[in-house]
Amino acid sequence: MLTAQRPAQWQRRADRGWHPTRMVVGGFAGAVVVGTGLLSLPLATESGRQAHLVDALFTATSAVCVTGLVTVDTGSYWSWFGEAVILLLIQAGGLGIMTLATLFTVLLSQRLGVRAKFLAQAETKALDLAGLRRLVRNIVLFSLVSEAVAAAVLTARLALAYDEPFGQALYHGVFHAISAFNNAGFSPYPDNLMRFVTDPLVSVTVCAAIIIGGLGFPVVFELLREWRKPRGWSVLTRITLAVTGALLALGTVVFTLVEWANPRTFGALGPDDRWLAGFFASAQTRTAGFNSVDIGAMRPESLLASDVLMFIGGGSAGTAGGIKVTTFGLLALVIWAEMRGDQHVNVGYRRAPTANHRQALSVALLGVGAVVAATFTMLSVTRFELDVVLFEVVSAFGTVGLSTGITARLPIPADLALVALMFLGRLGPLTFATALALRDRRRRFAYPEERTIVG
Amino acid sequence: MLTAQRPAQWQRRADRGWHPTRMVVGGFAGAVVVGTGLLSLPLATESGRQAHLVDALFTATSAVCVTGLVTVDTGSYWSWFGEAVILLLIQAGGLGIMTLATLFTVLLSQRLGVRAKFLAQAETKALDLAGLRRLVRNIVLFSLVSEAVAAAVLTARLALAYDEPFGQALYHGVFHAISAFNNAGFSPYPDNLMRFVTDPLVSVTVCAAIIIGGLGFPVVFELLREWRKPRGWSVLTRITLAVTGALLALGTVVFTLVEWANPRTFGALGPDDRWLAGFFASAQTRTAGFNSVDIGAMRPESLLASDVLMFIGGGSAGTAGGIKVTTFGLLALVIWAEMRGDQHVNVGYRRAPTANHRQALSVALLGVGAVVAATFTMLSVTRFELDVVLFEVVSAFGTVGLSTGITARLPIPADLALVALMFLGRLGPLTFATALALRDRRRRFAYPEERTIVG
Ligand SMILES: [K+]
Ligand SMILES: [K+]
Repeated sequence: MLTAQRPAQWQRRADRGWHPTRMVVGGFAGAVVVGTGLLSLPLATESGRQAHLVDALFTATSAVCVTGLVTVDTGSYWSWFGEAVILLLIQAGGLGIMTLATLFTVLLSQRLGVRAKFLAQAETKALDLAGLRRLVRNIVLFSLVSEAVAAAVLTARLALAYDEPFGQALYHGVFHAISAFNNAGFSPYPDNLMRFVTDPLVSVTVCAAIIIGGLGFPVVFELLREWRKPRGWSVLTRITLAVTGALLALGTVVFTLVEWANPRTFGALGPDDRWLAGFFASAQTRTAGFNSVDIGAMRPESLLASDVLMFIGGGSAGTAGGIKVTTFGLLALVIWAEMRGDQHVNVGYRRAPTANHRQALSVALLGVGAVVAATFTMLSVTRFELDVVLFEVVSAFGTVGLSTGITARLPIPADLALVALMFLGRLGPLTFATALALRDRRRRFAYPEERTIVG
Repeated sequence: MLTAQRPAQWQRRADRGWHPTRMVVGGFAGAVVVGTGLLSLPLATESGRQAHLVDALFTATSAVCVTGLVTVDTGSYWSWFGEAVILLLIQAGGLGIMTLATLFTVLLSQRLGVRAKFLAQAETKALDLAGLRRLVRNIVLFSLVSEAVAAAVLTARLALAYDEPFGQALYHGVFHAISAFNNAGFSPYPDNLMRFVTDPLVSVTVCAAIIIGGLGFPVVFELLREWRKPRGWSVLTRITLAVTGALLALGTVVFTLVEWANPRTFGALGPDDRWLAGFFASAQTRTAGFNSVDIGAMRPESLLASDVLMFIGGGSAGTAGGIKVTTFGLLALVIWAEMRGDQHVNVGYRRAPTANHRQALSVALLGVGAVVAATFTMLSVTRFELDVVLFEVVSAFGTVGLSTGITARLPIPADLALVALMFLGRLGPLTFATALALRDRRRRFAYPEERTIVG
């Protein structure tokens, strides 16, 4: 049981080697094992033959980590049972990450004396068992309502404009709503969402679900409660909104202009549809992973821009992956302060503590290290070029799921490397940042300072 | 005149818009302009025809910034006069960066109250005009002695083992000694140093000159003065030695193993020669840029490993480029402290101040930004693949000069982009870090702290 009135209890447990991050890693690993088992049933495949263990493991990991990379085509390889398992794993993974990340945020807020604005009882700065239940209930409610709205719009559109029978339209609507809100990027259509590239209603609905899910529960709840009082918004909300907006706009412009005259992607579309496709592609890097054009046909500049956007990812304590827009925003603010010669790093009317800088730095640079190491490994075991390998690696690390098409053609060691990277990318930054923030080891003495030259 | 007894004078000048970093940028830009002018003389080319302005500008920038990337073959395109101009530009660029960087280090040391161990009068913590003269004299002496020793060994070897006439052997010996010590990587041989791939004497002499020049004057002088007392070494020396050693060893192992069976590179050599070639390739990324095998024939894993090593570069206040091993080492220590949950970042028995972390973070991430932006630009104006473009861009940014061969085949906009990047890579981190460290703007108030979630 979790009572923040007695933080000492937490500390004692942590000191005995028990740590909440172990619970997270264990929970996700358990979900992957159960998912792999279910997808290994002959019942799960269209053909009725048992799936290859690596494909089952890869698909289960990709679903639980809401990544969306696939080694086999979702719609044609898996049966309805298999697809239902995938959908449940996505929902469990998305809810799991939101709940746990939010819970840790609350714990951190309490330890750090920060108001947790998305809690009804935030004023008391305490979370008892009833508060915990209410928190989880709110998260589930928020997820289900968002998904229901998106599913309703998509179902209506598919039934009315695409002549899908109602049952099929409903299934596709629900599947894509869940897949979008949880930033999973799975689709039962063999061409993912390419058939909707010129459909603003489907494109915008999917993107809206992605963005809302990716902002993160704390931000969305603060906005719902205090949207009239922007001056009181927390640092988290300010950075998340500013960076998300900037990256969405930047990505839209870059993708649209770079692909403008590419006959294999946007070149075949009308001018307005090119901007729609550019916005759609930009939203996917926040980190949903649907595609409305063939990613493998995009220009290398687009792939590089995607790499950067996917690495940054979405909001904290939401369904998005990557190092998170808060990490990126905080680092940008540190550099800006450094360039101006400011001593403090300010966001609005608040100062970001030094410990926060170090944490952001560590999350970002360890992410770079993981991506470089995985890319090196993938280059060693395959003959693919750097651009497509780097893209696939960043897509896995950021739990994005966009693919130039090489994931379906990889040798088993490379598949397993991607499985590890998806898991690390999903849980790494969170558990790492949490483990650090919950720890409070101090030396009893300090050495004298000595500055060195850098650069 | 520069007297640290009156730091207020500095501050006043800085407040009036005058800043020592302007002097550096102006000085290097002036050298590039003069060099471009001299290389544009018909006298400078072998053919007697005036060189193309872009080639002259590119070569002059590459020489002054001791990069070594070339658009035309040094030995066959430029006359003896042209090669002499290049050699002088290299020497001027190398001495300039060492002197200025060391000078700034002294100024910083004084402002920060740190002992500058490489000054004879360090105990007084003051640098008068006589001290300044002695400092410059020591740097010039150190450069000339190192170059003379390397030149003597190389000349003897070329005359005795390769039957070059004495005049030619002397010229080649001096040229490569200067080019190596200053980490320039220029060679009058059309195949660079590929003919010496199995010659340990030439390889090791060149690498030794590179490493000594690249460690940086402050570190070398501290070692000369205090090599018996490692416990008293400064943070700068500790980090520089540890990281340089680790990267040299890592690079040697990676290059040797990855290229072991590549018939177009190390595969044709005996086992011992493969390790020699691996060590040689590793030393070049620290950031000299000679090559003893065809870089364009290396495997993509080697290119990626090179990218990382070249980006990190060599020591501060030396002839090497990159973000510097101190920056990298400091960031690694910050992450390590963060992972262990330590409050302070310690090196030996000294604590690295927080301001130093922020500076290292800014230098590294702005470097990443410059590389990504330049790579995006180069991909837009050429049809080359990401792996070779990224390699060339990092090579220019780190003033390394290794090339897969694409630099000689680029369109003019791409040439100019590389010129800008070489200049930025050479002066950026130094002037940026210095400008920041010399500035001391403080807000009169501080906002309350608010921690946010990252990761
Ligand atoms: K995804
Ligand atoms: K060089």
